[in-house]
Amino acid sequence: MSTDRLSSMSKEVKPESVELCPLGTAAAPEQELLCIFGTGDLGRSLGQRLLQTGYRVVYGSRRPHSCGPLPKGAQVMSHAAAAQSASLVFMCVHRVHYNFLEMLAPHLRGKVLVDVSNNLKKNLYQEANAEYLQRLVPGSHVVKGFNTLSAWTLQNGPSDANRQVYLCGNSAEAKQAVAEMATKLGFSVLDRGSLSAARELEDFPLQLFPEWRLPLKLAFGLTTFFFFYLLIRDIIYAYVEQKKDISFRIMVSLANKVFPIVSLTMLSLCYLPGIIAAILQLYRGTKYRRFPDWLDRWMLCRKQLGLLALGFAFLHVLYTLIIPIRYYVRFKISASTISQIKENKTKEFDPTTAWRTDSYYAVGILGFGLYVLLGISSLPSVSNALSWREFSFIQSKLGYVTLFFCTFHTYLYGWDKFLRPSSYKWYTPPGYMLSLVVPSALLVLKLLLLVPCVDRSLTRIRQGWERTQPDDDNKTALLT
Amino acid sequence: MSTDRLSSMSKEVKPESVELCPLGTAAAPEQELLCIFGTGDLGRSLGQRLLQTGYRVVYGSRRPHSCGPLPKGAQVMSHAAAAQSASLVFMCVHRVHYNFLEMLAPHLRGKVLVDVSNNLKKNLYQEANAEYLQRLVPGSHVVKGFNTLSAWTLQNGPSDANRQVYLCGNSAEAKQAVAEMATKLGFSVLDRGSLSAARELEDFPLQLFPEWRLPLKLAFGLTTFFFFYLLIRDIIYAYVEQKKDISFRIMVSLANKVFPIVSLTMLSLCYLPGIIAAILQLYRGTKYRRFPDWLDRWMLCRKQLGLLALGFAFLHVLYTLIIPIRYYVRFKISASTISQIKENKTKEFDPTTAWRTDSYYAVGILGFGLYVLLGISSLPSVSNALSWREFSFIQSKLGYVTLFFCTFHTYLYGWDKFLRPSSYKWYTPPGYMLSLVVPSALLVLKLLLLVPCVDRSLTRIRQGWERTQPDDDNKTALLT
Amino acid sequence: MSTDRLSSMSKEVKPESVELCPLGTAAAPEQELLCIFGTGDLGRSLGQRLLQTGYRVVYGSRRPHSCGPLPKGAQVMSHAAAAQSASLVFMCVHRVHYNFLEMLAPHLRGKVLVDVSNNLKKNLYQEANAEYLQRLVPGSHVVKGFNTLSAWTLQNGPSDANRQVYLCGNSAEAKQAVAEMATKLGFSVLDRGSLSAARELEDFPLQLFPEWRLPLKLAFGLTTFFFFYLLIRDIIYAYVEQKKDISFRIMVSLANKVFPIVSLTMLSLCYLPGIIAAILQLYRGTKYRRFPDWLDRWMLCRKQLGLLALGFAFLHVLYTLIIPIRYYVRFKISASTISQIKENKTKEFDPTTAWRTDSYYAVGILGFGLYVLLGISSLPSVSNALSWREFSFIQSKLGYVTLFFCTFHTYLYGWDKFLRPSSYKWYTPPGYMLSLVVPSALLVLKLLLLVPCVDRSLTRIRQGWERTQPDDDNKTALLT
Repeated sequence: MSTDRLSSMSKEVKPESVELCPLGTAAAPEQELLCIFGTGDLGRSLGQRLLQTGYRVVYGSRRPHSCGPLPKGAQVMSHAAAAQSASLVFMCVHRVHYNFLEMLAPHLRGKVLVDVSNNLKKNLYQEANAEYLQRLVPGSHVVKGFNTLSAWTLQNGPSDANRQVYLCGNSAEAKQAVAEMATKLGFSVLDRGSLSAARELEDFPLQLFPEWRLPLKLAFGLTTFFFFYLLIRDIIYAYVEQKKDISFRIMVSLANKVFPIVSLTMLSLCYLPGIIAAILQLYRGTKYRRFPDWLDRWMLCRKQLGLLALGFAFLHVLYTLIIPIRYYVRFKISASTISQIKENKTKEFDPTTAWRTDSYYAVGILGFGLYVLLGISSLPSVSNALSWREFSFIQSKLGYVTLFFCTFHTYLYGWDKFLRPSSYKWYTPPGYMLSLVVPSALLVLKLLLLVPCVDRSLTRIRQGWERTQPDDDNKTALLT
Repeated sequence: MSTDRLSSMSKEVKPESVELCPLGTAAAPEQELLCIFGTGDLGRSLGQRLLQTGYRVVYGSRRPHSCGPLPKGAQVMSHAAAAQSASLVFMCVHRVHYNFLEMLAPHLRGKVLVDVSNNLKKNLYQEANAEYLQRLVPGSHVVKGFNTLSAWTLQNGPSDANRQVYLCGNSAEAKQAVAEMATKLGFSVLDRGSLSAARELEDFPLQLFPEWRLPLKLAFGLTTFFFFYLLIRDIIYAYVEQKKDISFRIMVSLANKVFPIVSLTMLSLCYLPGIIAAILQLYRGTKYRRFPDWLDRWMLCRKQLGLLALGFAFLHVLYTLIIPIRYYVRFKISASTISQIKENKTKEFDPTTAWRTDSYYAVGILGFGLYVLLGISSLPSVSNALSWREFSFIQSKLGYVTLFFCTFHTYLYGWDKFLRPSSYKWYTPPGYMLSLVVPSALLVLKLLLLVPCVDRSLTRIRQGWERTQPDDDNKTALLT
Repeated sequence: MSTDRLSSMSKEVKPESVELCPLGTAAAPEQELLCIFGTGDLGRSLGQRLLQTGYRVVYGSRRPHSCGPLPKGAQVMSHAAAAQSASLVFMCVHRVHYNFLEMLAPHLRGKVLVDVSNNLKKNLYQEANAEYLQRLVPGSHVVKGFNTLSAWTLQNGPSDANRQVYLCGNSAEAKQAVAEMATKLGFSVLDRGSLSAARELEDFPLQLFPEWRLPLKLAFGLTTFFFFYLLIRDIIYAYVEQKKDISFRIMVSLANKVFPIVSLTMLSLCYLPGIIAAILQLYRGTKYRRFPDWLDRWMLCRKQLGLLALGFAFLHVLYTLIIPIRYYVRFKISASTISQIKENKTKEFDPTTAWRTDSYYAVGILGFGLYVLLGISSLPSVSNALSWREFSFIQSKLGYVTLFFCTFHTYLYGWDKFLRPSSYKWYTPPGYMLSLVVPSALLVLKLLLLVPCVDRSLTRIRQGWERTQPDDDNKTALLT
């Protein structure tokens, strides 16, 4: 209804009468006229796209007779004339030039103003551009939108990552009109509520993986630390103590120690905040007190931590699988066979070693399989198709099973080396032992939380029960 | 339009006049007042979220002066007073307490009641909670919704798996009002039709992969069967007949026989129902008779069968790729080299074996590549982007090619062992032979269905032609 | 609002009075009556589905008393009577029979006609079916839709790839009514604008990966070329010059040369058009002149080129990882060990070779990891969740890093063989050298474009600056 009304308004025929027309006898929308303020690059791109979709376009310009090349078929007028001829006006003008709109306010009364502007940096202005615009032209209906699209998209229409248009504004009708128009341009529209969401929309195109920063920094830090730790323990130790240069091991052998260590650590860091939160709730006896800020932030990047951990696990798998085609490994195996023959002593087959190493590989593979499953289930389209119970089953239950498999895989790797003094070169433990600390502690704590009486308390607290509820209740009752 | 009306109703100003207002001059929605019945955990979480989004919230409580801690900024009133002040009431009350609403019915006339309740088990009550509520308060407009979200989501806003809100109800306007509100909270809304869909929505959060159960059971059954079958044939046979303990082979060698067998069997079980359905249609000469129930159920879990088959194939690939780094394999290869030298006889290179094994690997890899492609194309976001013809091309044509590659891979593995009596230990065929039965039969049947005259009949039947149509037609004509 | 009106119209109660009713007191939508013209297969499937969802259905038929079996519960009438009883009519009739509707035009005035028809081939008619229908019955509101669904879906309801319904039409109200109905049937609706989009919708079900054709042809061509090139250089050369039959190497060794070559070439072809476009823009000094058609077409299939390249890389990885389990490789390694012993000379370990090969593998794995990341980020649901800046960061920056890694991987593979005359059998360079040409040129050009002064010019041009702007400007100003 609203668009019909808008379109008929733009054709200057008594707007209210539409209500009485039978079903959609209003003319086809091809002739609808839209106005664009600003003849810059963005204005031109948008206008061209609108013309291609079948709209008529009029530009509002300060110098209607010398405003540069415009798309074929578009008219140019003064701002006031252009505004009056259409019911919807695109603001393709930089925020710093908005002030001229204040004078135009009478011509913009009742019009829908689409603010497509972006800023060059976050927090440049106290007020969102769209809110500023609404304040300048209070009689209009400002809708923020299209700013999340690239100029290329505005000119060429929606493509892969550019199909979604976010709108916000205070007038439901104005938003509806803009939504219809965006739909005709081929976009899918998501309403983000009132104009107070404008700042969020204006910040969106400026962001570059904000929620990935902390996990990426962590991954980088851990990788660097373990790289140098192992470099010293393996390569430099061999050079200093045994005068052997085994620096060629850096590229694969060393990397293939760093990756699984970082992967396991990050996977456990992904589940640790949940455990800490549970312990805090148990300790406080309530779930109504806010977690400390660092815990909140940590909880919000769990998905990213898990996905990075999966990435490292993926690299670990590939690095492991190329082992047998490495020159060094082939040389070593061949050398060992030759030395066996020369010294004429045959190694005995040891079934225990076979059991251990095979279990080690099998557990690792199963762990990685579950890891991949966790990764797939966090693809947006997959997780959207799951019920909340299903999602939490996968991410929590299966997640802990994955963590258990990966930890067990590492223990099997260590096997009896934990007790061998020769493992502790220069009194430092091997890297994989360090990586076991967090996941082992985590699994023990998780087991403790699963003890029936603890579990029951926690469940009650999470259902809203509070240990000191009666007192609190009275206090609150007195206060209100 | 409807929300504006609702919001203005909540401000008690002549509701019908809105229709005449120009475009959305109704005040901004920030001041809209919503009512929540119930001050329990859910009510509090929801209220907090609504307040954060900019709504005003009033709680209806039986004991307005002693109802425990409530979010800051919310009012508390008696149920009747709270209901009267808002046009939209959330029911955050357990179904067992609904009966008190009967008395409030006059105060709730014309109000939108949002039923967010869930039950603890399926089929606890004959009537859906929302339908029961509608019957208790017939003058209201009950909308079922939000019940698929976790309490955490209601309090903290949408996150990954919790962006979608399902609504159903008999009044389009009431649904529209709730949808607008949900959108403002940041959710995306899916209308599921009239209130008769309420039971479905109430069952949704209780479900845990219902469509995966049968395939998972099947996978588990097949895995168990083939594990013990191969355990007896390989490990126990060697122990009994040759007094050799090769139990260490369980972890990898045996598993890597079970996984591909189960994978191939399940992939063929994924395509078998389609073949059976085609044969049934050919036999019956019509497509208008229902398939038997077991076939319908089978057809509905084809996707899950295929994905599980892919999972097993993935494990098979990883188990195969770690073969050369296994202690046992390295030992065996080294031992074979040593024995060649000691016995001073050189093995001849056999080009046929090279051809066969390389083909075997190549076909397997290509089959797995197609497998992965099938898996990717069944991701919701990918399959949504395909036209129906494209989807069926991939899932059907490419699916059969995949099945053919995998079957061929297994035949190449068997090669001349089919005729070797030593393969049939204790008169049982090797596992891979068993796994070939279903896919071979399937491929033969599929080839038969592709014979031109059969294919033509089937196509005609699927286009609606019926072998006994003329008779039927007359009969129907007489009956009507 | 509109549906209520429609539904009440179908119940023949004063349609306009609904506007005055309080919120949705109109009866539940279960009793709504819909009309279907055509009792063929499609009409029957659709009718059955509508009846299951709770609608009443009336068929319009030329022979209402002998029209074959219809779903239980549906009525049959003459076309005119059926049309008059409902406000929404489905056209389940082939386009060639549309002409009879011209006579029915008076009965169809103000009705919503849903055109679900498809054609057997593209461009069979000049006019889209729906536009033809609108011309025949000008007083009606034609909505094109549902034609992208399979008949199976229409009968059984939405399933995986069949959840989306596309609508287009000139009347917003009619579309809204059809959208509501589709939503009740469980579909999600996407409005594609006015009726002029009907042709696009009618062509959609006929398409089979149109945007994949060119990349697939290219992949096929490259694969064939390099296969025969390497066949001649490797297998036939060995046969002719050394009288050795090494044809068994075709299945894995040769394939594993072809795949990485094609993968690298296609990855660079995916980034080449961007470079060409930049050079063109620099040369022309403006971004406002259209690119030649071949460049436009090339740019549009970049995503497909990249994904195919990833597919070949995936095969390359698997083919590489099975190397050590190949019979030929095992034989060769064993033979080399044996010969070392017999000739009693030990090979020296060469750290440089270890460094080189390990780097070669490591760089390859990291390149493949990034490749996979690019692939994941082009899944529709993932790319939709990214801001435009994030998407272009991954696809452009990370894409070039990937290309660099893969090119470097190939250079490390070549190492000092570039200068060895024995590499150039029959005066032809090895395959990997050919594959290095395009990516090397591409990376050099990209580096040139990143030189500050060039980069600055390009950025200015892309922001809309034109080298000859002043002149142009004057000319345009004079022309307008």
